[in-house]
Amino acid sequence: MPVRFDPPSGTRDFLAPELEAREAAFGIIKEVFARYAFEPLQTPAFERLDVLTGKYGDEGDKLIFKILRRGEHEASGEADLALRYDMTVPLARVAAAYGSQLPTPYKRYTIGPVWRADRPGRGRFREFWQCDLDILGSRSPLADAEVLCAVCEAMARLDVPGFTVLLNSRLVLAGLLRAFGVPDDIGPDVLITLDKLDKLAPAEVTAELAGRGLAEARAGALVDAMTAPDATEQVRAALKSSEESVSGLEEIDTLLALVRSQVPADRIVFTPRLVRGLSYYTGAIWEVTAPGIPGSIAGGGRYDHLIEALGGPDVPATGGSLGVERILALRSADSEGQRGRLDVAVTVMSQELAPASFGFAAIARSTGARASVYLGASAKLGRQLKWASDAGARLCLIYGKAEEAQGRVTIRDMTSGDQTPVPAGELAAQLSRMLWGDPVGTPG
Amino acid sequence: MPVRFDPPSGTRDFLAPELEAREAAFGIIKEVFARYAFEPLQTPAFERLDVLTGKYGDEGDKLIFKILRRGEHEASGEADLALRYDMTVPLARVAAAYGSQLPTPYKRYTIGPVWRADRPGRGRFREFWQCDLDILGSRSPLADAEVLCAVCEAMARLDVPGFTVLLNSRLVLAGLLRAFGVPDDIGPDVLITLDKLDKLAPAEVTAELAGRGLAEARAGALVDAMTAPDATEQVRAALKSSEESVSGLEEIDTLLALVRSQVPADRIVFTPRLVRGLSYYTGAIWEVTAPGIPGSIAGGGRYDHLIEALGGPDVPATGGSLGVERILALRSADSEGQRGRLDVAVTVMSQELAPASFGFAAIARSTGARASVYLGASAKLGRQLKWASDAGARLCLIYGKAEEAQGRVTIRDMTSGDQTPVPAGELAAQLSRMLWGDPVGTPG
Repeated sequence: MPVRFDPPSGTRDFLAPELEAREAAFGIIKEVFARYAFEPLQTPAFERLDVLTGKYGDEGDKLIFKILRRGEHEASGEADLALRYDMTVPLARVAAAYGSQLPTPYKRYTIGPVWRADRPGRGRFREFWQCDLDILGSRSPLADAEVLCAVCEAMARLDVPGFTVLLNSRLVLAGLLRAFGVPDDIGPDVLITLDKLDKLAPAEVTAELAGRGLAEARAGALVDAMTAPDATEQVRAALKSSEESVSGLEEIDTLLALVRSQVPADRIVFTPRLVRGLSYYTGAIWEVTAPGIPGSIAGGGRYDHLIEALGGPDVPATGGSLGVERILALRSADSEGQRGRLDVAVTVMSQELAPASFGFAAIARSTGARASVYLGASAKLGRQLKWASDAGARLCLIYGKAEEAQGRVTIRDMTSGDQTPVPAGELAAQLSRMLWGDPVGTPG
Repeated sequence: MPVRFDPPSGTRDFLAPELEAREAAFGIIKEVFARYAFEPLQTPAFERLDVLTGKYGDEGDKLIFKILRRGEHEASGEADLALRYDMTVPLARVAAAYGSQLPTPYKRYTIGPVWRADRPGRGRFREFWQCDLDILGSRSPLADAEVLCAVCEAMARLDVPGFTVLLNSRLVLAGLLRAFGVPDDIGPDVLITLDKLDKLAPAEVTAELAGRGLAEARAGALVDAMTAPDATEQVRAALKSSEESVSGLEEIDTLLALVRSQVPADRIVFTPRLVRGLSYYTGAIWEVTAPGIPGSIAGGGRYDHLIEALGGPDVPATGGSLGVERILALRSADSEGQRGRLDVAVTVMSQELAPASFGFAAIARSTGARASVYLGASAKLGRQLKWASDAGARLCLIYGKAEEAQGRVTIRDMTSGDQTPVPAGELAAQLSRMLWGDPVGTPG
């Protein structure tokens, strides 16, 4: 039977250069989140099927990868397990399972793959990494602010160019609907349409609002207020009318004041038209955008009832998700690692000299270098130097009969071609000097 | 519907202390392997079903987790994908898919979960981590030696106490069977029985060999030679009779000479009775054992035809696998991380003072500390100090009205209870001094 060698549709093999770039980015994120005293969590790749079904809507349910029962039950064609679809449902399960063992509040982050049977496309995968950051058990705006600051610091450390945080609150949106006379029953529909203001022209949005049953004059006034150059001021003025919306504004202002010391003012902007599609948010909501990137590269908010709705305990919660695949795609151009960053290649000129060559590689490694001996079948120096060059080695150690007779090793600089004979006993110090610029052997 | 909150049978949730200990160990392994110039590889969690089936024998095939087809095909009850069962079949696929893009030889390591529908038990999981290290494309004994040295260095760096490498060769075993007159057709069965010498008494093994059709005198002589105090010498003497077995001995001696500079002689022992169950090995074979641990904690060898048999190209190969779950279990007692290693806790005495407290946490983080503000609802200092203590904080920053009036922050040492008022502008330097013993702010 012919076998295809590419990975399954929508998945990827990560070879060294790309994998190292990804892991470096994940390492930066983990370090930032740890400084904010978030702790890591890792749950299994699969959950019991009943933990996942019914949590993502009908469309989401169809995208769950289900695992067939095993043994005598395999023939039933039924599934009992399913691959993780997101990181929030497992978080709710963990909160229910380990409640009293977890600190209060429980600040956790998680970075790992999730699986969705979506149609694969450019930048859309069936196996992709998610990075979530959440705080369970605190109603304080300080918790929202901590999440925002940690996300901004991660973005900055990942060198995401020119990112901006758009900030809003569900209370502001509710007040806005009231201020503009939107009937309660069409409120959610109106928000879904307003969410399109960054894609559609204002007139198109107004027409769609009218189609949803909002009187055309009101629809026009609402869209005007949200798209005017002084939209924020117009909205602030309109919101003064109700207690709910005043507390929404206060929430925004409190958050802005808290993050001020850590996030420059031009990086975080009150954006009344930010809706975020998902209905479970209850307070502050935010998205991170970057120039030239359609959509957002991170997003989140407060969701005080979701953990309970997902089967977990009744705890307030706030958090967000970094779109790591998009962020990695932004970075990959400049920061992708180079295959074969071998520091030191070591020739093997004959079987008799092999143990000595092997020992020189060990000496090179002891200085912190990545080192390898030649593993091919040729005894020709030219062939071995070509290997060293192909492997990207900075230095090559040559040890043949002549060197053996003199108790020396020849160090060849692979860039300049300069060769330096060195007494074997001084090899470590000389390599440290040539590789790291110092004689004591600490890599840079 | 009632939902259970534990993870699925045979899988684990890793909360912070255990996860951090695991990641620290994986980090050590990665660093060692990188120094040996092995490069990382990560393949998808699942493969096309036909890539996996037929590769693990009938028993293995039954343990594969299969993924149900999706959409309109779900009702068929058929599977088209399956979770990764090991790291070797994906390696063969990658070697076939990217042949010319990979360096020659291709030295790669991989650390990640695999899934097997085994009956869960003590130390036996359905989701567990494997760590494989392999070199494709070299017939040189230097390749076997590099794998062995890298494995030994990883064991040493992981503080595995008193480990020993048992070394043998398939050529030695073949020569041994010939030297003791074992008929070719029962050779493989005889090896399977000899593999039990570490579990059964010599007389039991002799009886089993006789049962397999080996003349009792020959069986007795073979078992005597392999269990005598001078077994190695007896075997060496017996092996002088055939060319194949002489070359097996030479292979062993070459390997021992190569690793000598890096692995102490008492850590690696020629062990003629080492068989290793799997039939695909073609040259050197080895296992790592540690006192008090039944079975092995790592194992591998040369397998020159396996990659082709698994659907990959025809390349010689050598490699091995660390039993990371067993090694982690060995380590967990001493090196498990502590939850809540918060360095600096920061009180929030009122909403007005919150932005300042938030800024002090940022200052603490800038010195390298893990820092967090109080996220609860109480304005009482006692409550907040209890939180700081529960979170394991070393220092607590107190900032109330009195401190505000004086432009100071109070630093409380959570161990001694000593409190030191510090001008806000000197906080970073003072924290660095108290946390890291120096005023410039580098964590230890």
